[in-house]
Amino acid sequence: MRTITVGVLGAGRIGRIHTENLFRLKGVRVKSIADPYADFSAWPPKDVATGPDPELVLEDPEIEAVLICSPTPTHAPFTDAAARAGKHIFCEKPVDLDPDRIRQTLAVVEAAGVKMQVGFNRRFDPTFARVRKAVTDGEIGDVQIVKITSRDPEAPPVDYVASSGGIFLDMTIHDFDMVRFMSGAEIVEVHAYGAVLIEPEIGNAGDVDTAMTTMRLSNGALAVIENSRQAVYGYDQRVEVFGSKGSAEAFNEVPAQVRLSTAEGINTENPLYFFLERYQASFVSELETFFACVRDDKAPPVDGRDGLMSVVAGLAATRSRAVNRPVVVESADVTP
Amino acid sequence: MRTITVGVLGAGRIGRIHTENLFRLKGVRVKSIADPYADFSAWPPKDVATGPDPELVLEDPEIEAVLICSPTPTHAPFTDAAARAGKHIFCEKPVDLDPDRIRQTLAVVEAAGVKMQVGFNRRFDPTFARVRKAVTDGEIGDVQIVKITSRDPEAPPVDYVASSGGIFLDMTIHDFDMVRFMSGAEIVEVHAYGAVLIEPEIGNAGDVDTAMTTMRLSNGALAVIENSRQAVYGYDQRVEVFGSKGSAEAFNEVPAQVRLSTAEGINTENPLYFFLERYQASFVSELETFFACVRDDKAPPVDGRDGLMSVVAGLAATRSRAVNRPVVVESADVTP
Amino acid sequence: MRTITVGVLGAGRIGRIHTENLFRLKGVRVKSIADPYADFSAWPPKDVATGPDPELVLEDPEIEAVLICSPTPTHAPFTDAAARAGKHIFCEKPVDLDPDRIRQTLAVVEAAGVKMQVGFNRRFDPTFARVRKAVTDGEIGDVQIVKITSRDPEAPPVDYVASSGGIFLDMTIHDFDMVRFMSGAEIVEVHAYGAVLIEPEIGNAGDVDTAMTTMRLSNGALAVIENSRQAVYGYDQRVEVFGSKGSAEAFNEVPAQVRLSTAEGINTENPLYFFLERYQASFVSELETFFACVRDDKAPPVDGRDGLMSVVAGLAATRSRAVNRPVVVESADVTP
Amino acid sequence: MRTITVGVLGAGRIGRIHTENLFRLKGVRVKSIADPYADFSAWPPKDVATGPDPELVLEDPEIEAVLICSPTPTHAPFTDAAARAGKHIFCEKPVDLDPDRIRQTLAVVEAAGVKMQVGFNRRFDPTFARVRKAVTDGEIGDVQIVKITSRDPEAPPVDYVASSGGIFLDMTIHDFDMVRFMSGAEIVEVHAYGAVLIEPEIGNAGDVDTAMTTMRLSNGALAVIENSRQAVYGYDQRVEVFGSKGSAEAFNEVPAQVRLSTAEGINTENPLYFFLERYQASFVSELETFFACVRDDKAPPVDGRDGLMSVVAGLAATRSRAVNRPVVVESADVTP
Repeated sequence: MRTITVGVLGAGRIGRIHTENLFRLKGVRVKSIADPYADFSAWPPKDVATGPDPELVLEDPEIEAVLICSPTPTHAPFTDAAARAGKHIFCEKPVDLDPDRIRQTLAVVEAAGVKMQVGFNRRFDPTFARVRKAVTDGEIGDVQIVKITSRDPEAPPVDYVASSGGIFLDMTIHDFDMVRFMSGAEIVEVHAYGAVLIEPEIGNAGDVDTAMTTMRLSNGALAVIENSRQAVYGYDQRVEVFGSKGSAEAFNEVPAQVRLSTAEGINTENPLYFFLERYQASFVSELETFFACVRDDKAPPVDGRDGLMSVVAGLAATRSRAVNRPVVVESADVTP
Repeated sequence: MRTITVGVLGAGRIGRIHTENLFRLKGVRVKSIADPYADFSAWPPKDVATGPDPELVLEDPEIEAVLICSPTPTHAPFTDAAARAGKHIFCEKPVDLDPDRIRQTLAVVEAAGVKMQVGFNRRFDPTFARVRKAVTDGEIGDVQIVKITSRDPEAPPVDYVASSGGIFLDMTIHDFDMVRFMSGAEIVEVHAYGAVLIEPEIGNAGDVDTAMTTMRLSNGALAVIENSRQAVYGYDQRVEVFGSKGSAEAFNEVPAQVRLSTAEGINTENPLYFFLERYQASFVSELETFFACVRDDKAPPVDGRDGLMSVVAGLAATRSRAVNRPVVVESADVTP
Repeated sequence: MRTITVGVLGAGRIGRIHTENLFRLKGVRVKSIADPYADFSAWPPKDVATGPDPELVLEDPEIEAVLICSPTPTHAPFTDAAARAGKHIFCEKPVDLDPDRIRQTLAVVEAAGVKMQVGFNRRFDPTFARVRKAVTDGEIGDVQIVKITSRDPEAPPVDYVASSGGIFLDMTIHDFDMVRFMSGAEIVEVHAYGAVLIEPEIGNAGDVDTAMTTMRLSNGALAVIENSRQAVYGYDQRVEVFGSKGSAEAFNEVPAQVRLSTAEGINTENPLYFFLERYQASFVSELETFFACVRDDKAPPVDGRDGLMSVVAGLAATRSRAVNRPVVVESADVTP
Repeated sequence: MRTITVGVLGAGRIGRIHTENLFRLKGVRVKSIADPYADFSAWPPKDVATGPDPELVLEDPEIEAVLICSPTPTHAPFTDAAARAGKHIFCEKPVDLDPDRIRQTLAVVEAAGVKMQVGFNRRFDPTFARVRKAVTDGEIGDVQIVKITSRDPEAPPVDYVASSGGIFLDMTIHDFDMVRFMSGAEIVEVHAYGAVLIEPEIGNAGDVDTAMTTMRLSNGALAVIENSRQAVYGYDQRVEVFGSKGSAEAFNEVPAQVRLSTAEGINTENPLYFFLERYQASFVSELETFFACVRDDKAPPVDGRDGLMSVVAGLAATRSRAVNRPVVVESADVTP
């Protein structure tokens, strides 16, 4: 297997997780990591170069692929620069919050002829992948309904919420991608209800903490995404796809397959705490897939257009909640 | 226990089911059954009087309580007549499809001072009742989200659909009542998506066979009801109530608690086929409750106003789908 | 359907349960109930004759079938008398604790040409019947292992234990029948361990409260029955049949199909409390089957030989525990 | 964290699995691997020394700890040599099939003052560890019953069986350790039934493929282990511990938490295929624990005496099946 030399932009939480996974991946060598704010004294190991400037990565001709794990506003410019430098790109979601800016970047990537994968890791989760397989194998017939339950174990800090773009672009965005992944169809219209039931400060920041989003899909199916910023029993991530021949459901993962029976009832474990625990395998798998695509010159299964479409759906939901009526989702065309 | 003498109006499917249950109920005597179309040659037993005319029941001074199981258009007039004759009333749903007509009838019932219970049997199902108890006992804290999955095992005949008032008044009506029962709140606004994905003839009849209805409730919570006219694996009736302290869920009942493990996978039973099997216990329990209320002079737990509110919600959903925007649910006031 | 006139011997707990079920059975008329100790002032209804003497039932030529629900020592003599009077017999288990006495009675029954069914109601439980069907339909191939978990929710009074014949004849006897029912094979050898872990008084009475019984079956398969007199979480009645093509398992029934998720874990309901709740349907079904056999002149599916074999296995297990070595089960031949 | 230099003896399947896990463990450096038969051309990486002779590892003063993954007959001599060389020892099970030989080795280890851990990896499985925690935390009260279901997905080659020591020393040995781990008690007496139901050649080799082993424990509790060499639906590894306050159960792990509902029933996934998949995490965890004990100078939680006791129980079960009566388990004393 050919070894691919990689650079990482951004050494925050997700950047470090990806990099640790890269260290264990066969056929990959992490050469350098750039982050203007990170403390590199204790991490990473000495044989990885570090520094504050993205040029460390972007201008190194030996580096073939770049992981973009920096803050959202830098995703598009770094993607542009990496593409122009002829490097393949793995970019965290969202590419940008402005669809037109994303379209510009996708045009740059296309012109450069490099590969780009967007970090919708959940598609690579074994449980969700098995549900998707039930759809593609025809086990449940034609898709008629997609239902997603997506609840976080605790609400984020209010100042995070304020800069997140709102629940539909920060949290539901993953679920929009899941609706598209599961159905193989596009979201054509959205209606969203929102409520502030958990943390009044989230409401004061102009956002909601509870949301119910319904959709029409391009194949005629209907979908619903339900979000809550706080499920006290843990991270609740369930999907159901219902079709003409049956239904396929994904349930939560638990830390141990145990059952305790006492006079007080029959008790099982709460779900794995949060996305790092729940989606651990998918973070590895999405990188393996990306490097396999680079190595074998194949198109990544989650591309820039997928990154665009979830943002477009998130913006439509945001607007629907604001005006309280259904909103048609902006055209899926990459070129406006 | 004092024995209550009862008359039944309507000897169709639901009328016979109720009457058979009455035969087994202690403290109840079925004196007569009236139905203009029924064949009484083989049923009921000889000691029950039968005949075509409702007067057999309505004008019998010995009859203290009436079960109205006749076609929907007769519900309101029969309820009026029974109330005026001073009889307590158990009336199948819907009381009428016109809210104003229901309001008239409720006024007659109130003026007569008789008791009236409407046949929302699902409230008496042990599984749903246990979920409701989790809410009232505070086990899940403040209600924030109600989710209902309600799918029939097969679509009804198209000519039935044509005269049913549409999916929201025929099928979703039960689920609207369940939302109100579970949350203890009123439905204040509704948005409904519908689709014809199962049976084109249902579309030709102006109805849909798949629906996704979202709601705002008077306590600020959000709710969603998802309906399908055909789940090939059987009658799918699930409820989740999610709150500040956790979540309570109701799952399907199966004919046998078995699991079969073979090389092809781990297999369990499909749900009980349809409502007669699934809700068998609740049909008995709602009648026990009604007669206990009559005997102890208590207010029935599902009354005429409950009958009105589900119709009002169903009409709002019907209209929302037609105009494709959220519709405010008509005032809950019984007196307009 | 021809109506069968029935008499009942014994109006204790199980006698009343059976009689109440008979009242609801179509094609059956309960004419008389005899019990020397019962108080008949409040029960049964006036149209049933009652009295202290068994002759009320046994000498009534109109009575075609007899239910024997009296204390164990009377089972064999009453069966003999009923058979000689030409009446069909439904007899509670055990027929007797002495296999030779049972053999005498079975000879009387055979000579009289009447039908006899023994009250192993669990065979008629829908869940266990479905597991048995998996075996007879070949879904799990050749039976290799049978495993039974059988735990009561609380230990019986010590004086009951003292006169019960011991755990293997009182409690395990049902499970021995289940092993035979599930496997379709005979028990040929038994080894039993016992322990007093719950109630020392049970040990003082010469019995055990916890038992682990292993068996060789006539088809070469192995089986295990595990018994406890006290599972604090409720009545635990599980069966697994494992074969060359897979495994079929029966799980506990619960009062409501609900799940409660809170910060403390995911909670479901304890099993139905005890045998009256758990096996309610089977008590009705075994009687329906018995009267159908009488009516259609068919052999009952649980007969006197089944009654004999479980007693023989229970005695072998009792002896195995006493001598602490495997004991060959006495021949299955009815005629010694 | 101090880095420990390690040598590995044996580069067969389990040796390679352990070594790969060591490569990912922090604070551990694999210096050399010795195996007389292995092909080292493609594995391991170049910075690890390899060779046919155990002296490569045993005589290297820099090596502080040794993993013994070679064939069973070499376990005891290699352990002796490593101990005499002052190295800490992680030894695969069984230490030997002769208890006296194990006792000799344990005496050598004790005299050398080095640490020794035996490879009963299942104790480190998160699911089983959670059940054990329920016991030690008192959640289920006093242990009264331990039940283990342990079935392989397919029978091993007959020539493997012939040299394996028989099912009780090859397969049940893990389950004996689990009984001891779960109960915290010793096995004092064993009775075993065996049968040849899967592969006649296994019977011809003098072994059985199906076994049912019951036990008395030193705390008075009873236990049962059920083994099958072939469950067609996959690796079935379940444990139940039942006590005075309830029951704790461990269930199988599946590759995906999905459910498929179709007209044919409700389907979930078969268990993870075999021990490499099922116990993956436990293989890592047992090594982490071993090196933490070395580093912190603590006693390993699974020691030589645990290795001895499972062999002693396996021999007792082997003999019990041969003579068909219960066999007292040889004294647990390490020094005879």
